[in-house]
Amino acid sequence: MASDENKARRRRQIAEAVWRLAARDGLEAVTLRQVADEAGVSMRLVQYYFGNRTTLLLAALEILNEEAEAAAQQRIGALGSDIPARELVRAILMELLPLDEDRRRRYVVQSAYFVRFLTDPQLQEVARTADPALESLLASILTADPTIESDDTFADAELLIAFAFGLQAEMLLNQLDEPHALRLLDRTLNRILGNPH
Amino acid sequence: MASDENKARRRRQIAEAVWRLAARDGLEAVTLRQVADEAGVSMRLVQYYFGNRTTLLLAALEILNEEAEAAAQQRIGALGSDIPARELVRAILMELLPLDEDRRRRYVVQSAYFVRFLTDPQLQEVARTADPALESLLASILTADPTIESDDTFADAELLIAFAFGLQAEMLLNQLDEPHALRLLDRTLNRILGNPH
Repeated sequence: MASDENKARRRRQIAEAVWRLAARDGLEAVTLRQVADEAGVSMRLVQYYFGNRTTLLLAALEILNEEAEAAAQQRIGALGSDIPARELVRAILMELLPLDEDRRRRYVVQSAYFVRFLTDPQLQEVARTADPALESLLASILTADPTIESDDTFADAELLIAFAFGLQAEMLLNQLDEPHALRLLDRTLNRILGNPH
Repeated sequence: MASDENKARRRRQIAEAVWRLAARDGLEAVTLRQVADEAGVSMRLVQYYFGNRTTLLLAALEILNEEAEAAAQQRIGALGSDIPARELVRAILMELLPLDEDRRRRYVVQSAYFVRFLTDPQLQEVARTADPALESLLASILTADPTIESDDTFADAELLIAFAFGLQAEMLLNQLDEPHALRLLDRTLNRILGNPH
């Protein structure tokens, strides 16, 4: 029997195959057979680790999101614990932007999932009931800072996140380059949280 | 030879087939053959009207966008010409939200295109060099209103549009319902353009 570490490695190997297929050809036509071929493993192994096609697609997305969160926490943790709320919020929103190859690849894969979430009822239910964890996190940071004036920090968190997702899409399309996107991000933070100066 | 009207009807019939296939199965696997079958016409006719696959996909998107613009202009025109800048900007941003079945269907199709725009170099070039016409329109409305304080109306237009695209995505995923989305839209307008009261 495989060790836990081996299992995790296998699962990641298969998830990576899903991500590559999603970014290249979309998720519509992806079959267990293709994932097995792309990962270089047997179809039985894919089924053993992930079950059917829907549970595979969801698990591959979950692994993608977990890795994104780990990378984000590492980058944000490196900023130290005593930075101002505004800087922390800025850093969290920047995690949603394709500012390096890793994040760009990840958001292309998420875009491929996005379309499926719109048309597959099972996936749609997962999206609809998703926990607004990011909104809650931002709202709690804003609430904790007495220098930030807001009558509704949760609503401010929601609109900042919607804005960052819009920026993400425009950056993925190369309609905004990084300096331009960051100027807009700072302008929005000034408008919503007040000017830091 | 077909009349201009017949030609337009034929072109729309074929474009509609592309939209249905895009919303149902994504654009990755769409072939001229499938489009012809879906539209109930011959493949030669599809080629006669649209050329190859890439020119067909682009033309079908163009027709979609033209219809969206016509519908938007009609709804906005119905508001009359003497409404305040803020109301006009609000109405334009609302056109980006899936507030009826027509717009929802349209934005699902656009989402299917979005993924292809990220991975197909020819399509990507089209997106990258797209005219920021909507930003310019919003900016000119903001600039014309002396009650709106802004040192950079174009940047405000850009961030409002990015925000509306983010709202659109969250509404498509059913993470925000219409009243909630409109509350966030009004909050953002208050924050960026000042409170109307």
